[in-house]
Amino acid sequence: MFLYIVEMVGAFAAAISGIRLASMKRFDWFGAYIVGLVTALGGGTLRDVLLDIPVFWTRSWDYFAVTGISMSVVIAFQKQLVRRLNMLLVFDAVGLAMFTVIGVEKTLAIGLPMWVAIAMGLITGAFGGVLRDILINEEPLIFRKDIYAMACLLGGVAYGVVMAFGGNAVACGVACAVVTLTVRVLALRFGWHLPMMHPDDDGE
Amino acid sequence: MFLYIVEMVGAFAAAISGIRLASMKRFDWFGAYIVGLVTALGGGTLRDVLLDIPVFWTRSWDYFAVTGISMSVVIAFQKQLVRRLNMLLVFDAVGLAMFTVIGVEKTLAIGLPMWVAIAMGLITGAFGGVLRDILINEEPLIFRKDIYAMACLLGGVAYGVVMAFGGNAVACGVACAVVTLTVRVLALRFGWHLPMMHPDDDGE
Amino acid sequence: MFLYIVEMVGAFAAAISGIRLASMKRFDWFGAYIVGLVTALGGGTLRDVLLDIPVFWTRSWDYFAVTGISMSVVIAFQKQLVRRLNMLLVFDAVGLAMFTVIGVEKTLAIGLPMWVAIAMGLITGAFGGVLRDILINEEPLIFRKDIYAMACLLGGVAYGVVMAFGGNAVACGVACAVVTLTVRVLALRFGWHLPMMHPDDDGE
Repeated sequence: MFLYIVEMVGAFAAAISGIRLASMKRFDWFGAYIVGLVTALGGGTLRDVLLDIPVFWTRSWDYFAVTGISMSVVIAFQKQLVRRLNMLLVFDAVGLAMFTVIGVEKTLAIGLPMWVAIAMGLITGAFGGVLRDILINEEPLIFRKDIYAMACLLGGVAYGVVMAFGGNAVACGVACAVVTLTVRVLALRFGWHLPMMHPDDDGE
Repeated sequence: MFLYIVEMVGAFAAAISGIRLASMKRFDWFGAYIVGLVTALGGGTLRDVLLDIPVFWTRSWDYFAVTGISMSVVIAFQKQLVRRLNMLLVFDAVGLAMFTVIGVEKTLAIGLPMWVAIAMGLITGAFGGVLRDILINEEPLIFRKDIYAMACLLGGVAYGVVMAFGGNAVACGVACAVVTLTVRVLALRFGWHLPMMHPDDDGE
Repeated sequence: MFLYIVEMVGAFAAAISGIRLASMKRFDWFGAYIVGLVTALGGGTLRDVLLDIPVFWTRSWDYFAVTGISMSVVIAFQKQLVRRLNMLLVFDAVGLAMFTVIGVEKTLAIGLPMWVAIAMGLITGAFGGVLRDILINEEPLIFRKDIYAMACLLGGVAYGVVMAFGGNAVACGVACAVVTLTVRVLALRFGWHLPMMHPDDDGE
């Protein structure tokens, strides 16, 4: 139950980020809702399609409801939201950690190896934002801005390390979530970036 | 048989819309054909992948043939097409209605609940256009312009309402198609729009 | 074993093309790696999802490793790469031919008809580049520039023709690869293009 609430908080924050970006592009209400929804459930959907397991949101409409709440909050409290960006970023980081754990565990549950599970944790956590950016026709932010997907990757590795040392599922999950969350929050706090690629020498 | 012809008319109109947009971007013949094809069958393909049922166009090449006809029509009769835009929009609305019904029925046929069926009706009807806009690198039109996906949504709801009152499959399908078509045509005729999101207060 | 090396050379060249385009957009290292990876395995992934067979890269991490090599090569030898563009283009054409054969054969292996196999050969060969261009937010190159997907298409047709004349799998595969490679290399050498669509008369 606690984990379910954490997941919904993450979905709420993800949907808000999608709806706010859609607002800046002057999408209509429907478009903004869809962009919010895709941000929240796109990563998990891509994971389920790649793993060939039933797409999770066909089993329960909670992501649709949470996106509706996000939508109402953006419309009613837009000004106040701007002042609470830090809170939203923390919610988003919590969701990132939770989504990563879910992605890793779903993959291991169907018997695939650890490195696939790490890839699926990353896809679950970070690809909702990639699909969002494709829908609003922008270059995906996570490919250019601070540490985001890298936090999922390190969280997934932490899961594998604890498992290799004989930790049970709870210990693995906690390690994964703590590492993902910590890396993401520290990256935000200290403005960590990955090195950029240099096109200059490229001659084109 | 009648329904099959209606479906092909819808595919024809959808492919035309994709090919014309690709023409404006100066794609080559192959690129324009692919964009037309994806507009016509993209929504149904996404639906089948999400439902984990065989992708419909691997069973018959009729969508490929219809897109070929659309292609020939655009190349040969481009000037005349511009004068018949209203007819194309009506064909497109007919296709939207038909696609929505197919999406709803395919979902109910595998035992998923009504709200998933409504979502899949909307995806079948409206996401071909979203994939088209992603391919030609534009912001998806349906997120900004008049009532399009909303017509599918209301049509799907009409299906559910008639079913809840004990209507048989034919009555449900007719209600769904009539509502989708009517809403879409009225929206075009009277320029109905959904409210837009406002970025102004957003501070970014 | 020989075929496996050819496939990896193709993946290497595809990943390089993705990483170089990501560099021009100033993506960070992680983003460039993902774009390279999607270019290399995106076509095959889409094929496997559409065919509803297990996604090939969940069975072996060789594409992930090859993309890592491509990444190192781009970072370490960027200047030299520009002088060896012709070699890269030949590698890429070799990969295109190999990917097309794999796509055709995987489709026939699950009992689908020849025309679906040709479509899947084309998707395997050419859609990695489409997904790459969607990720970096550009109009897909293959829809506007020289003969690329058309080479896969003709290669697939060659496969079908040899099969219709009673050729065994090896003969079919060789014919497909030779045609794809030849068409692609000749198109590059002589600057062959498909006719472009004309928007002028379009009135919009």
